[in-house]
Amino acid sequence: MTRSFGQRLHTTIEQRGRLCVGIDPHGFLLDAWGLPRTAAGLREFGLRVVDAASATIGIVKPQVAFFEVFGSAGFAALEDVLAAARQAGLLVIADAKRGDIGSSVDAYGDAWLTPGSPLEADAVTLAAYAGTGSLGGVFDLAQRHGKGAFVLAATSNPESLLVQTARVAATERGDLTVAGLVATEIDEWNRRHVIAGDDDVDTPALGSIGVVLGATKNLLDYGVDVHSLAEGAPLMPVLAPGFGHQGALFDDLGSIYGPLAAGTIVSTSRSALSAGPSALADTLADQAGQLSGALS
Amino acid sequence: MTRSFGQRLHTTIEQRGRLCVGIDPHGFLLDAWGLPRTAAGLREFGLRVVDAASATIGIVKPQVAFFEVFGSAGFAALEDVLAAARQAGLLVIADAKRGDIGSSVDAYGDAWLTPGSPLEADAVTLAAYAGTGSLGGVFDLAQRHGKGAFVLAATSNPESLLVQTARVAATERGDLTVAGLVATEIDEWNRRHVIAGDDDVDTPALGSIGVVLGATKNLLDYGVDVHSLAEGAPLMPVLAPGFGHQGALFDDLGSIYGPLAAGTIVSTSRSALSAGPSALADTLADQAGQLSGALS
Repeated sequence: MTRSFGQRLHTTIEQRGRLCVGIDPHGFLLDAWGLPRTAAGLREFGLRVVDAASATIGIVKPQVAFFEVFGSAGFAALEDVLAAARQAGLLVIADAKRGDIGSSVDAYGDAWLTPGSPLEADAVTLAAYAGTGSLGGVFDLAQRHGKGAFVLAATSNPESLLVQTARVAATERGDLTVAGLVATEIDEWNRRHVIAGDDDVDTPALGSIGVVLGATKNLLDYGVDVHSLAEGAPLMPVLAPGFGHQGALFDDLGSIYGPLAAGTIVSTSRSALSAGPSALADTLADQAGQLSGALS
Repeated sequence: MTRSFGQRLHTTIEQRGRLCVGIDPHGFLLDAWGLPRTAAGLREFGLRVVDAASATIGIVKPQVAFFEVFGSAGFAALEDVLAAARQAGLLVIADAKRGDIGSSVDAYGDAWLTPGSPLEADAVTLAAYAGTGSLGGVFDLAQRHGKGAFVLAATSNPESLLVQTARVAATERGDLTVAGLVATEIDEWNRRHVIAGDDDVDTPALGSIGVVLGATKNLLDYGVDVHSLAEGAPLMPVLAPGFGHQGALFDDLGSIYGPLAAGTIVSTSRSALSAGPSALADTLADQAGQLSGALS
């Protein structure tokens, strides 16, 4: 039986920790790494990050936008990076922020989560401007193939306030913000889709669909109550940007995410990648060490 | 001086009408058209739609998700289709629904709107879950290069209700829904960015950043007041899905969009593409005729 993404993520966190490095080939980083600003440069950048990550941590997150700039050549580079990362046993989250409705959003699910697809990853990031219900086909596809997804709930940028704190019309769930609605609906999805025969009875087994909750935010101000979301099982996983360059501190992991911290993936990017290719593995090991101390 | 996207769109609507055909290579359509479900099949499908469109209408809208399924090979096919469409003088809206924050969303702007980019289009669709402010870099890039964008406001699917009708915290703009906020902020952006020297004084000149407003919705229920949005100049353009297969009628264009109808692009897809490749041009001409009668 295919292991669920939540089960695989749980194992990865136990064995390799919760640190995830972004594969974010900014122009200034390519320059600093002595690589050309071309699809070949992106490919080389990505493969070097995969090498450093596979020696030290368990999760990578390629930022698709940087590859898309180079069109089909950029996607060919991304295919090589995705394949190398999965071959190395890393969990791969394609940071694509895809979203649409009907057959179009289903096609995005096919693109990123179908085994054997050229762009196959282990999970993909999604946006639910058209409602989490619009993403249901992708969630079902993920479930069938042992894949996962992370849906934007509270993003780490300042411009997100008005949309994400808007109050949803009263439902049987009570008074919710947009961010709270997304998190609540994803949490409910996980509870409805516990894998039959899941015998992780002694562990806080993780669901396969998670949310993005920026570490730079007071989540309660966004209407996201990490305590009520963590009641019951499985625990909804969280992808947490905002550490390092954006200002949040690893030591605050527990205070920001509370009981959700156990299933939280901490994303690092510029603060690690700026170390350069030769120091990247050591920098990741150092950050992973800081992080494992943060929850103990 | 580069003509703005709004000026180009205005000319296209005057000379070729407001009908836009989706380049949506669904599997069932590829089968019906006798084309393989491969990147080569997608390329051929796209080129045939471009041929039929260039003979009859002025705007095409490739749905990127269907190409993304085939990874780099799919994007290579899309590059050929985009180039053929622009070469044929069609306005090309890449239906990508991209969105992100910071340098990542700027990279999406680069990918789709920079002259000479492999994926260059005339406009791209965007999602503002992280706030319209998160898309400002893309809007500025579009403005510099005579390009455009369409931001999701009220989408045509039923699952969108709770997110898009959520009430935004009180601002100086009064009581707004999420959909109303997006539309209002885009309208304001267009008014702040009137092209200097624009002498279209006798015509309802269009802005370069538009919104997606689904034709299947009662827009007032979504907090989108087409009358107040149409006060002043330039008029904010609208991309309107939901006609045909999804149920809205061309004859209702004026009653749905009111004074915004003058700058509204009407999207047709399955109802035209199902005619098959040999009848597509005639079907588009027929739909364009129905549509030009709808506002007269």
